[in-house]
Amino acid sequence: MIAFVTGAAGFVGSHLVDRLLSLGHSVIGYDNFSTGHEEFLFRAREHAQFRLERGDVLDLDRMQSAMTGSDIVFHLAANADVRFGTRHPRKDLEQNTIGTWNVLEAMRRREVRRIAFASTGSVYGEPSVFPTPEDNVFPIQTSLYGASKVAAEALIEAYCEGFDMQSYIFRFVSILGPRYTHGHIIDFYAQLREHPDVLYVLGNGRQRKSYLHVYDCTDAMLCAVHNIGAKVNRFNLGTSEYCEVSQSVRWITESMGLCPTLIYSGGERGWTGDSPFIFLDCARMRSLGWSPRFSIRDAVIGTVRYLESNQHVIPQAARRNAS
Amino acid sequence: MIAFVTGAAGFVGSHLVDRLLSLGHSVIGYDNFSTGHEEFLFRAREHAQFRLERGDVLDLDRMQSAMTGSDIVFHLAANADVRFGTRHPRKDLEQNTIGTWNVLEAMRRREVRRIAFASTGSVYGEPSVFPTPEDNVFPIQTSLYGASKVAAEALIEAYCEGFDMQSYIFRFVSILGPRYTHGHIIDFYAQLREHPDVLYVLGNGRQRKSYLHVYDCTDAMLCAVHNIGAKVNRFNLGTSEYCEVSQSVRWITESMGLCPTLIYSGGERGWTGDSPFIFLDCARMRSLGWSPRFSIRDAVIGTVRYLESNQHVIPQAARRNAS
Repeated sequence: MIAFVTGAAGFVGSHLVDRLLSLGHSVIGYDNFSTGHEEFLFRAREHAQFRLERGDVLDLDRMQSAMTGSDIVFHLAANADVRFGTRHPRKDLEQNTIGTWNVLEAMRRREVRRIAFASTGSVYGEPSVFPTPEDNVFPIQTSLYGASKVAAEALIEAYCEGFDMQSYIFRFVSILGPRYTHGHIIDFYAQLREHPDVLYVLGNGRQRKSYLHVYDCTDAMLCAVHNIGAKVNRFNLGTSEYCEVSQSVRWITESMGLCPTLIYSGGERGWTGDSPFIFLDCARMRSLGWSPRFSIRDAVIGTVRYLESNQHVIPQAARRNAS
Repeated sequence: MIAFVTGAAGFVGSHLVDRLLSLGHSVIGYDNFSTGHEEFLFRAREHAQFRLERGDVLDLDRMQSAMTGSDIVFHLAANADVRFGTRHPRKDLEQNTIGTWNVLEAMRRREVRRIAFASTGSVYGEPSVFPTPEDNVFPIQTSLYGASKVAAEALIEAYCEGFDMQSYIFRFVSILGPRYTHGHIIDFYAQLREHPDVLYVLGNGRQRKSYLHVYDCTDAMLCAVHNIGAKVNRFNLGTSEYCEVSQSVRWITESMGLCPTLIYSGGERGWTGDSPFIFLDCARMRSLGWSPRFSIRDAVIGTVRYLESNQHVIPQAARRNAS
């Protein structure tokens, strides 16, 4: 098949591109390189079945033209900075919701009928059922990021009903692994490079979080797309475990051989819209035969190893925050 | 209090304006008159505590300026044409989702902290629990209209969390009564004026629908706003009954003294995204002491009486569809 991948030069996107190519598919990668990295596509670009198209999901005409002839769209392009939503209140709306509408509209115009979408466990807000199943109660949104993704899911579903499309909606926990470029491990890593003796941690450290390795994530997406045929398919994607932030901190500091003083900012939530407990019920995805190969611990330590060898991927902002 | 009402010249909006003024509040009405009617504000405009501001919710600067000094926003401006969503796939996104973001952003900039929002029972898609409670399962959207409203709800909730606002989200069934300007009764009425002997009905007539009189609707909104103080408050608004479309047809034709041949287009749904059964659990709203005064039958017949005396409100489109 010919797969059109938005956010192809991003963390998850670039791994998905590699995986699709290794399985013999053709791939059109679409990225505006606002946060994507050229180097993440170094393998893909040597592949005859890969084509890179530079463009923004907000440029409907450009994307529509680039998408021509595709069989399926993997829509991964997004603003993924959950924490800073309130600093730029239009960013999530624009990049995640309106961007997804553009993807759907390009698909409708080009008669591409299948979409796989990277959503988030954040759409559940602060649930009271753990592990949280896909059909949990109508959630109340607590972040602009979560709101923008639930809006994108809704648009995808309405397009499926209205224009005879098929969708795979994946609600991710936080993803870790090689090419990891944003999130708490980078923040901690950048801090500890700057001042190895002290680590500032948002919240009280008791927040319980789930993480999934990017290899397990892309495996799950392809497993679902190849094995399920309903009109709208929603899957939680995570491991069957969670850890406290303080545990994650220990794995990170230990694997760096450091023993810093930990200074917690306090509070149940690390920031406005932070969810104190994320733990998703992934039975639906497991029923297709998929299961994660990496534990949270392995994923965390593997991510630190990756950062140690690839410090240039650490965003300037994280380096600034650390100083 | 000073209330800012978007869609102030619309069906529900204009009744809400009248009600607010009668209770001694000051009202700033905001409308672009794309579907609003000047005449609906005839009473309001004679009132010293009413000010009309012409403008579009998509014009953020204009709205922000008009909103200055308000205590609460009643956001009713919307595209309410559920049925034709697939004919203009950007309209619901723009007018309902982006429009709501603009309202929230204007509120944030002007430090207006309370919002009451006209949402819809359509956000439940095709639920399997009836009457459907507010905390039913995470719904799958079946219309662009429903998607645009669930997106707006999500934005409102995220703004409440991120910027310390308070919200009242009302999920309406279809509203009937004086100043009714779109929906199936107009479609049927326009048809029967054109050809009294035959009535074309979308679907098989077995769709089960709920309706609420506009007076009961505005009473409920004000009751909730005055009596509840949580951060996010969601209320279903409907009666404790429903009727089949064929029953509604009988009330309409009988009240017009007609006995047309009925021609059903067939199918469980009248159109793509139509919900075959809408029946909301309004116990939460009733627990505040509110209950509807009008039955569905009274509301349907009252609406026909209104149209008989106000045929000029029937949109050109409905007149065309009838011919």
